[in-house]
Amino acid sequence: MRNIQNIELKPCDNPKYVKVNRMHYTQEGIDKTWEIAHVHDSVAILLYHQEHHTFVLVKQFRPAVYLSNGDGFTYELCAGICDKEGASLTQVAREEIHEECGFDVPLDAIEHVTSFYTAVGFAGAKQTLFFATVDESMRVSAGGGVDIEAIEVVELFVDDAHDFIFDETKVKTPGLMFAFEWFLGRDKY
Amino acid sequence: MRNIQNIELKPCDNPKYVKVNRMHYTQEGIDKTWEIAHVHDSVAILLYHQEHHTFVLVKQFRPAVYLSNGDGFTYELCAGICDKEGASLTQVAREEIHEECGFDVPLDAIEHVTSFYTAVGFAGAKQTLFFATVDESMRVSAGGGVDIEAIEVVELFVDDAHDFIFDETKVKTPGLMFAFEWFLGRDKY
Repeated sequence: MRNIQNIELKPCDNPKYVKVNRMHYTQEGIDKTWEIAHVHDSVAILLYHQEHHTFVLVKQFRPAVYLSNGDGFTYELCAGICDKEGASLTQVAREEIHEECGFDVPLDAIEHVTSFYTAVGFAGAKQTLFFATVDESMRVSAGGGVDIEAIEVVELFVDDAHDFIFDETKVKTPGLMFAFEWFLGRDKY
Repeated sequence: MRNIQNIELKPCDNPKYVKVNRMHYTQEGIDKTWEIAHVHDSVAILLYHQEHHTFVLVKQFRPAVYLSNGDGFTYELCAGICDKEGASLTQVAREEIHEECGFDVPLDAIEHVTSFYTAVGFAGAKQTLFFATVDESMRVSAGGGVDIEAIEVVELFVDDAHDFIFDETKVKTPGLMFAFEWFLGRDKY
């Protein structure tokens, strides 16, 4: 999994995925400009494995994080971008659970939690958070993503989730941290 | 505050702030490339106003979010990028509390909570989360940012924070949502 080699960073004059535009606008009478990277909205799903009493997460190499911290492996919720015309958010969530983590979860078992915006300073995409409970009866594959995606499925004991949030050697997203806290506090709601 | 006019989006062939590079690397023997926007690491501070029993937040127009949802105003934690050589994270946090929210908080009253990585798919910057308690004795200005920053300081009753998290008409970041949950659950820890 850690077999990453031949890393080179090159200028990217004509990006295909991270397209940058400049917004010109007037706020309170003052002319301003702001650079914006266009990115897709996405879904993320907190998966609770009820037989193992674990959260099912994905671990993967993120080139941008490698540049930032020299390691590059992150722990994330199962997630994916919304780039398919006509697919509902819940359908996208269901497909990502299948592709990345290998569980076939019925649509009506995928619970909407809330949504938020990430990288508001320069990108501003919306991520909708879902929750689903899984068990081995729903298992259809080992997961791991499609094509050349190199996604490792990892399970974290729910009882260890709180310590994990504060273990800064583990690279993770704030969406994952919120989702853990939401789950751990569910009894309150 | 909502006085935003003359919005135009133009191509940005030579971005000054959102610079895109392409990483080339080999993973498990497979050659891959990935586009990366270089952004600064940052700090965010959850501010608890103990006399008002509120969280002190900032509300601002975010061009990237405007493109995403047609409104563009976000609720965020007091925050700022780390672009000053030699300044500690806590010093950056202290300056942002001063500039954005108008409180002069002693360095040793700014508590480190944890850290996380945002926009890991294409940017991967680290944000370190701090916490500070403020009161009116620390007030030195009305806040609002520096130069042409148009930041509105808003207070949210702690008792309303939970409902706020699930009110999807309010645009907010997952870091803010995690910080609220962390505060609300502090008694547990």
